[in-house]
This record gives sequence, C-alpha cells and structure tokens, in this order.
Amino acid sequence: MTDRRMKWWGWGAEGVAFDPEHRPGVWPFVADQLQLDPDRPLDLPLPAAAVALPAQTRNAAFVAGVVEALGREHVREDDPERLVHAYGKSYRDLLRVRRGDASGAPDVVLYPGGEAEVEAVVRLAARHDVVLIPFGGGSNIAGCLERPAGDTRMVASLDMSRLSRVIEVDAASCTARIEAGAFGPDLEAALNAQGMTLGHFPDSFLHSTLGGWIATRSAGMQSDKYGKIEDMVVALRMVTPAGTVATRAIPRSAAGLDVNHLCVGGEGTLGVITEAVMRVHPLPAHKRVEGYMFRDFESGIAALQECVRRECAPSMARLNDPGKTALSLAFKSRSSGGQKLILRAMDAYLRLRGVAPGKGCAMLVKYEGSRAQVARQRREVAAVYRAFGGIALGTAPGRSFERAKYDFPHARDFMMDRGVIVDVSETATVWSKLMPLYKAASQAIVAAIAADGSPAWVGCHVSHTYRTGASLYFTFGAAGRRGEELGQYLRIKKAAEDAFLAHGGTLSHHHAVGTEHLPWLADDASPPGLAAMQAVKRAFDPTDIMTPGRLRPSATPFADWGLPGEDAA
Amino acid sequence: MTDRRMKWWGWGAEGVAFDPEHRPGVWPFVADQLQLDPDRPLDLPLPAAAVALPAQTRNAAFVAGVVEALGREHVREDDPERLVHAYGKSYRDLLRVRRGDASGAPDVVLYPGGEAEVEAVVRLAARHDVVLIPFGGGSNIAGCLERPAGDTRMVASLDMSRLSRVIEVDAASCTARIEAGAFGPDLEAALNAQGMTLGHFPDSFLHSTLGGWIATRSAGMQSDKYGKIEDMVVALRMVTPAGTVATRAIPRSAAGLDVNHLCVGGEGTLGVITEAVMRVHPLPAHKRVEGYMFRDFESGIAALQECVRRECAPSMARLNDPGKTALSLAFKSRSSGGQKLILRAMDAYLRLRGVAPGKGCAMLVKYEGSRAQVARQRREVAAVYRAFGGIALGTAPGRSFERAKYDFPHARDFMMDRGVIVDVSETATVWSKLMPLYKAASQAIVAAIAADGSPAWVGCHVSHTYRTGASLYFTFGAAGRRGEELGQYLRIKKAAEDAFLAHGGTLSHHHAVGTEHLPWLADDASPPGLAAMQAVKRAFDPTDIMTPGRLRPSATPFADWGLPGEDAA
Repeated sequence: MTDRRMKWWGWGAEGVAFDPEHRPGVWPFVADQLQLDPDRPLDLPLPAAAVALPAQTRNAAFVAGVVEALGREHVREDDPERLVHAYGKSYRDLLRVRRGDASGAPDVVLYPGGEAEVEAVVRLAARHDVVLIPFGGGSNIAGCLERPAGDTRMVASLDMSRLSRVIEVDAASCTARIEAGAFGPDLEAALNAQGMTLGHFPDSFLHSTLGGWIATRSAGMQSDKYGKIEDMVVALRMVTPAGTVATRAIPRSAAGLDVNHLCVGGEGTLGVITEAVMRVHPLPAHKRVEGYMFRDFESGIAALQECVRRECAPSMARLNDPGKTALSLAFKSRSSGGQKLILRAMDAYLRLRGVAPGKGCAMLVKYEGSRAQVARQRREVAAVYRAFGGIALGTAPGRSFERAKYDFPHARDFMMDRGVIVDVSETATVWSKLMPLYKAASQAIVAAIAADGSPAWVGCHVSHTYRTGASLYFTFGAAGRRGEELGQYLRIKKAAEDAFLAHGGTLSHHHAVGTEHLPWLADDASPPGLAAMQAVKRAFDPTDIMTPGRLRPSATPFADWGLPGEDAA
Repeated sequence: MTDRRMKWWGWGAEGVAFDPEHRPGVWPFVADQLQLDPDRPLDLPLPAAAVALPAQTRNAAFVAGVVEALGREHVREDDPERLVHAYGKSYRDLLRVRRGDASGAPDVVLYPGGEAEVEAVVRLAARHDVVLIPFGGGSNIAGCLERPAGDTRMVASLDMSRLSRVIEVDAASCTARIEAGAFGPDLEAALNAQGMTLGHFPDSFLHSTLGGWIATRSAGMQSDKYGKIEDMVVALRMVTPAGTVATRAIPRSAAGLDVNHLCVGGEGTLGVITEAVMRVHPLPAHKRVEGYMFRDFESGIAALQECVRRECAPSMARLNDPGKTALSLAFKSRSSGGQKLILRAMDAYLRLRGVAPGKGCAMLVKYEGSRAQVARQRREVAAVYRAFGGIALGTAPGRSFERAKYDFPHARDFMMDRGVIVDVSETATVWSKLMPLYKAASQAIVAAIAADGSPAWVGCHVSHTYRTGASLYFTFGAAGRRGEELGQYLRIKKAAEDAFLAHGGTLSHHHAVGTEHLPWLADDASPPGLAAMQAVKRAFDPTDIMTPGRLRPSATPFADWGLPGEDAA
C-alpha cells in the first residue's frame, strides 16, 4: 500500500540496514562488552511465509461497510498487510515476529483517505463492535500497536498514511494545520518549502507520523528549543465513537480543562487524531553542531543545568555517560587508518587535559538562529561548559552526528541477528534527583542482567533538558539465551522501571505507556489520576472499541506481556 | 477569621479604596465619556445588616463531624463569614450584594488547617451529601463561587487560607512546593527570602491564592517570560471524593494523559487542590520598565509580534489601544500643575512625531535578568519598536505603572457608587485573527451598550503574547439604569463573548468559565470535549458535591445568571 515498504521484522524500510563494513567497530565493541564470540552463529528472522498469523476474525457486515466507505483497494485482508501491522518496533515486538509469532496482527488493515472516511469507519466499528487500532508509522517501542490478547472481536488496524497533507500554513501566527498521517520528512519538506519548521526530530523521525507523536507524547532531539510535542499542539481534531472533538486554534485559554490535554497521550485508546494545528517556527538561518568532552557525567550534567539556569540552553544538548560515549566512539571508528589516527590523537589530547581513558563523557550541542543569535549562544554556552571542565572538540563530531542521527535503531536488528538483547528505557526527573536516579537505574539494570547470568552493558544519555529537570535515556545489552529472551528482557525492564519510580522518575519521558510500561502507570499517575484517564476513555469510547486494554489498571499487568507467571513474582 | 478583612461589597481589603483626590482625572474622564452628570447622586452599597442571607440549610451530622475534625473555631456559621464568602468579585457579584442580595452565600464556612483536615471534610461531605465550594482569595470575576441556585443541600465554603506555607524550595531543580491557600504576596515573600520567584503577578495578585490560580488557569503580567500558571505546575495534590490525586514532580512525561491537566482548570468542580510543586526562577538581578507610544494599535501589535518572531519578547509587554491609553492617562493626571505640564509637553512631542491626539497607543515593557541580559533585551526590543514607529518615553511611565499596577480594580467600586456599569472581558486568538477580532469585539460591545440606550466607552489592551498569538483584554463602561443593570451587563457580555467565539477567540484567556462564561463553553470545547470534562468530573466526584452546576452543558445557561427570560432570546 505504502511505498515506504516498512520491514515487518525490523526497523525502518526494507533495504536499509546497519552496515558493519561501514561501522566495523560496533560489533567487536558489543561482543567484547558481553563476552560473546564475535563469530557466533546467526539467529535470523524466519521467512515471512513461516510466520503464524492469527486466524482471521471477520465481521462481514463491517467489512462490507468499510469497503463501501473506503473502496475495496483500501481494505486489506492479505497476509503481508496484516503482518506488517502486527506490532510496533520494541525488542519484544521484534523478537516475537522474528521467531514466527504474529499473534498481535489485526484482521484487516484500513486506509482511510480523509476525516470523513475515518468518521465512517469509527461509526461502522461502533455499530458492529469491531476493535480499531490507529496506526501511524508503526515505530512505537512500548507495545502500543498489538491486538489485545483474548479479545474475540474483529480487529482493524487503521493506517493513517493517506492523511498526509500539510493543509495550511498561517505564517503570521506561526501555525500549520497538518494531517495526522504525515511522516516527519514529508511534513518538514512541506513546511520548509514555506520557510517554516516544526522543529520536531525524534530518533524515529523518518518512520513516524504527527498523529503518532501526539498520541504518544513524543519528544524530538531539539525539544530544548522547540518543546515536546504536547507543547506544540495548538488545536486538534479527534474522531471518537462519541463524536469528533474539535478544539480551536487558541494560544492559551481558561475554558475549564484543556481539551487538547484530554486527547494528547491517548495512545489510540480514545479516538483517531485526524489533524492538528501545530506551532511552527521560521527556519533558522544558521545552524551549528559542536562536540565537547567532559571529565565525568556529573560535570556534564552540572553544565547542562547551569545553561538552563542562565537561560542560554542551546536548541540541542546531548550528553553521553562513559558507557554511551564508548559506544558512540565504536560507531565512529571506520577501518581507515586516518580515522583511527584521529581517534588516537583525540584520546591522547583528552588524557593530557585530564580525561581518564574510558571515563570521558561526550556532549553534542546544536545552536540555531540568526548569525548573531548563534554567535551569542556559542559564547554563552562555551563559557558555562568551560567552567565545568568541558573540552571543545569542534564541529567534526557534529557533522558525524548529523549524518548518522537516525541510523542507530538499525543496529538493534544487527544485534538481534547475533542473539543480543538490546533495547532502551528512558525517564525524566528533577535536577536534584538526576544523578541519584542515574546511579540507581544503571546499577539496577546491570544487576538484573547479571542476575540472569549474562555480562551486562549499559550506557545512558541526557537529551532533553527543562528548567526543572532532564531526561535520562538508558541503552542496555545482554547476551540472550535462546528461547528465554523475553523473560530476560522483562526482568531488565522491570529493574529499570522499578528504579525509575523508586527514585523520582517517570515511567517514560517520551515513549508512551503501551503494554510494556502499563505495570507502572498507577504508581506514576496515582490511582485517582488513572481513574480519571479511564473516565475520559469511557466518555469518548463507551464500548471500548479503540485500542482496548491500555491506559487502564490491571491486576496482572505482566500477563499482557505474555508472561503470566511473572505476576506472581 | 482572616486578618485580611476582605470587603464583602467590593474589591480588596476594607480600608483600601480608589482615592479620587489622588487621581482627580478619572471620574471626569468617565463621566465625560458616558455623558453623565459628574455630581449625580451616589448609589452606595446597603449596610451589611440590610443584606439578605439565605436561610441556613444545616446538616447537623456534617456540622458535628467538621467541628470534631477542624475544631469549633474553624467552623463558622455566623452572618459576616457567610456574607464575605457569598460571591467572587464580578460586576454581577458586586451589584447583587451591594443591593442586598446575598443568595449566593454558603451555609457554613470551614477553615481546614492542612491536607488531612481537607480529606476529613471531603469524606464527611460525601457521606452527608453536603456541597463544598473551595474558596481561595475570593477574587474570581466569572461567577465561580456562588452557591448553585436550586440545590437544596447544605453548602460549605472551604476557605483555604490556613494552608499558606511554602513547604520546601528545591533550588537546584527550580521548584517550590507550596500550599494552595498561599496568597500572592506571602508566597512571593517566602520565595524571595530564598532568592527565588514564581513570576506570577496577576492583577489580583494581592487578593488571590495559588490554588485559585491553578483552578482557574490564571495568567500573570509577566506570562511572556514565566508562562501561564498551567505552564508552571510541575506536580499537584488534589483531594477528591474518589481519593487524593498526587502527581509526581517530573519535568515532562509520556505516561498517558497528563494528570496535572485533568486537575488544572477544574474551577473547584473536581476536588480541593491542597498544594502544588511549582516551577520557580532565581530572582532577576535587574529589572527595568519603560514606556513607548505607537501611532495606532496595528503597529503596536505588529511590534509585539515581531519580537515574538525574533525570540526577543521582553518579560512583560502591555499595549493599550487608544481608548485604554486615554483611560490610563486619566489615571495618571494629578492635580499638580507640574504633572499637567508634563502631560501637555508629552502630547506636543507626540504630535510632533506624528501621533494624532487621542490616537496614540501606550506600551509598557519590562526587562528582567542579568545586567547584560537586560541591556541586550532593551537593544533588541528597541530596534523592533523603532521599526514599527514606537516612540520611547523613558522609565517614568514604568515607575508610575509599578506603583499603581494592583490599584485599577478599586476604581470599579467607585464607579459602581456612581451607577456606572464597568467591567472587563478578555480573550485570546492567533496573530492572524487578532486585529479582526479586536475590531469586531470593540464594535459589538459599543453596539450592545448603545442598543440599550447608553453612551459607550470601551478600551482594550494586549498583555500576554505567545509565538502563535496574544490575548485581548477589553474594559467597558456604560451608564446603568437603576434596577436594570444586570440585564444591561448581560447583553454587553453576550455581545463580547459572541464576538470572541465568532472571530476565533476563546471565551476567556485567564478568567475561567464560572457562571458567566458557561453559555459559550460547548462552542469553545466542542461537545465531545465538554462531555470528556464532565466525565473527569464524575470520576473524581461521582455524587456532585464539588461546586455543582459548573463546567457542564446547560440548556438554559442564562438562567444561571438569574435572568431566565434571556434564554428565549
């Protein structure tokens, strides 16, 4: 249907993958960290034909209705469409589908062509009691997209990719009305053509949509300047079984509860977001990305914090801890002697400046604006960084980052081919709790991996700062034991999330709740808060047809993971 | 109970009032605009003893319970306490009470001493089916505080003034945990003592509380820098009949719907906010307020907008239209010959610079930060203002504003003593609609006043700007016809709100919905959005004991105003 040809078994589009010849340092680094034989046998995905789709549940009256409403060609019941819409892209999602389990797959995939068609689908689904799961780019990594286990109703995936237009740009107001199915590159191109940018560049940018961002409260790399997606929503339209919510393009209001916030973060459980009026910005005339190295994570964090206090935070600041810095360097190491020489020279230089080998923390910083604004930001930020021992590395690391910034998730497929459990968990907290949370969560992840008998690798970076705090984004690796990986992964995830909640963090800063973070939702929102979320759900979707089973309390949350035994633990 | 001795019949504390000898120009200006005899007979409030309180509805079991929970001295059933808690401070509120109608008064006033006591009260109210109306500073002007007409249950006003502490300041995280009953000056003093500021200075600052601000989505004069109150809430606690909501101090999250936003703007209908963790800021080292004059409103607005686009908006920019500029000048004119001379000189100077008499638009601008930041802001802003024809007037207008900035509402009592209908209505919209909305609403207000046979005065100012738009704050005056003022006022309000909604504005930018804006809520929120608000209400307060009758659809909204005949119109 879409010419993006998304992989059913991995990240991104078919034909685009991690290239070990281009990045020869990565696998040796990971194999070394996890004490794996670099030549261990491969563990490749099964062929698509060997993947078991669930028997199709078919509500004939609904199918007839949607065929009439959308046209036959936009109602797809074939295996390839069902397969590619089965899951998002979490480790757990990919592990299952690579091993032949596509039990999350919908019974039909619908491609509505506009809001009126979405309304027709929602009406038909309500009438015939069919489950709808809105589907944007399919890049979610929290388990937002699989069909609910045990639900006997027909399940339709609502692929929003045909609602992809930038409808209107109001340059005077810095707003743009954009359809929810627009992918990052497409909406940016359309905005750029009018001299504007949304400024939202999540790691998933190439493979995710506006509607998905809003439904999951996404954050982009430059959130320090442009805000998180919920900060950018001026108005939206959401089709629900109870009618179409339509908020108005108003900068701020005092009209009771903010209705935008009764929709943002709904994760497909409330309705189908069809479009939004987003705050946009004139394209910056100048950009510059630079690298820095800090002696340790504490001083890098202190530098980030001081920039916020002084109100000179750049548009992006990405600080790696030593583990993540080492991984990033492994990504950079090409086979060329010249590159190796540069790295060696840098190492010697840093040693001379007091950065112990393996302890350095790399920071990437991006400035944007007029020439004068960029110059001022650089001056102010450099003064702060210097005061905290930051060593300027120039623009070479920035160029390298800009080239590769959307590539990292591809490496996970390569690692999974080699039996490595690798994934991420991220959180946010206030500044005063950031280092304690960092230490506690790092130790908890390492301990959980070790308790399962594997060497552990963990790295962390800070990528979003606010006046009151920042995010912490952990990447971890462990050696999988064939057939037991899901339990291993769950125990790592549990350890990380338990540490987040115990030390003042949230269950997720920008990856949503989905299935994988549901066990921690009541603790995060407080039980009455969660009950109120459920009330909003019932108001919009009284018969529970929209992505059922999410954003609700559960007595046996781990059963939703497919690991019922864990709930007793 | 409180040593603030709030007026039951007017704005602020007893003993503080508008002083016509200090500001001799105001009354002649208004009388001239409205073609009134300056020496017309006074129309003063009745004495308190002549005001009719509703017969007390008394639930003995509830009273016994709260006496046990709070202590006898914190349960007040006397007339003065009931009277002063009868209403907020809208024109409609004051008109009624001045004329002897205190039908909005509660049956009892409770002063809980902490969250545990609030929880006890809410439990008792739920058990005995007693209505609770949380009461902060009592300064609301949208009709948020009166008892619901026709409700036969006992009504308790929950005065939060004993929950007034700044509990904890986390300077590293720029957060402060503050009890909801803290008044503006008290919480600022406590924060200032630790080198911090909340940065929230609404016109009602002296007479309003943190909890009231959060419940009504308040905006302060320096919102351009510090944000609106909902932008500052990091976490909160709200006692509801369904349990106590407790969100966590997290800068940003992706944990489903934002639970803070399921509480902010609840207007007392959901529960009792007991405390919040607020984003605070280091006290700025330098401040400077300056005046400018623009040739017309358009060029002033264009200058505001350009500052936002260039990301150099100052911490406050307050632009008056010609009507509001004339009123402000009337406020400034003292009897001293020197003052008059200065004003005449300024007039001559402005004429020389091309500002036609009566057409000029005054702008006040405030810079804050380090010395360097203030200098840079001034330089950048001055360049923009100059480009749009702004004429610098120096710091004298700023000093005058800083002295008088919280005094304006007192003038309304003085005007009401003279039979003048005077009130405000405010909205916000995107930049592209700002001038059309300004013109349409100004004309609608003037037309509505004229249709009722009175000369009209209307002024407007812009006081809050955002990247995507700005607020518009109208002040209007009309000659009241004794006994018919409420109908006159309603028709003006209707005209203003109808124009707001028809031209892309919201029903209120920062004054809440209350009773007076309820007729426009469904249009503003869209019916499914309003239904979702109602669902949140039912989740927190299933038996409708919290401030009933608000934030809900109504077939006869104007009946809530006490003007049932108007619904047929």
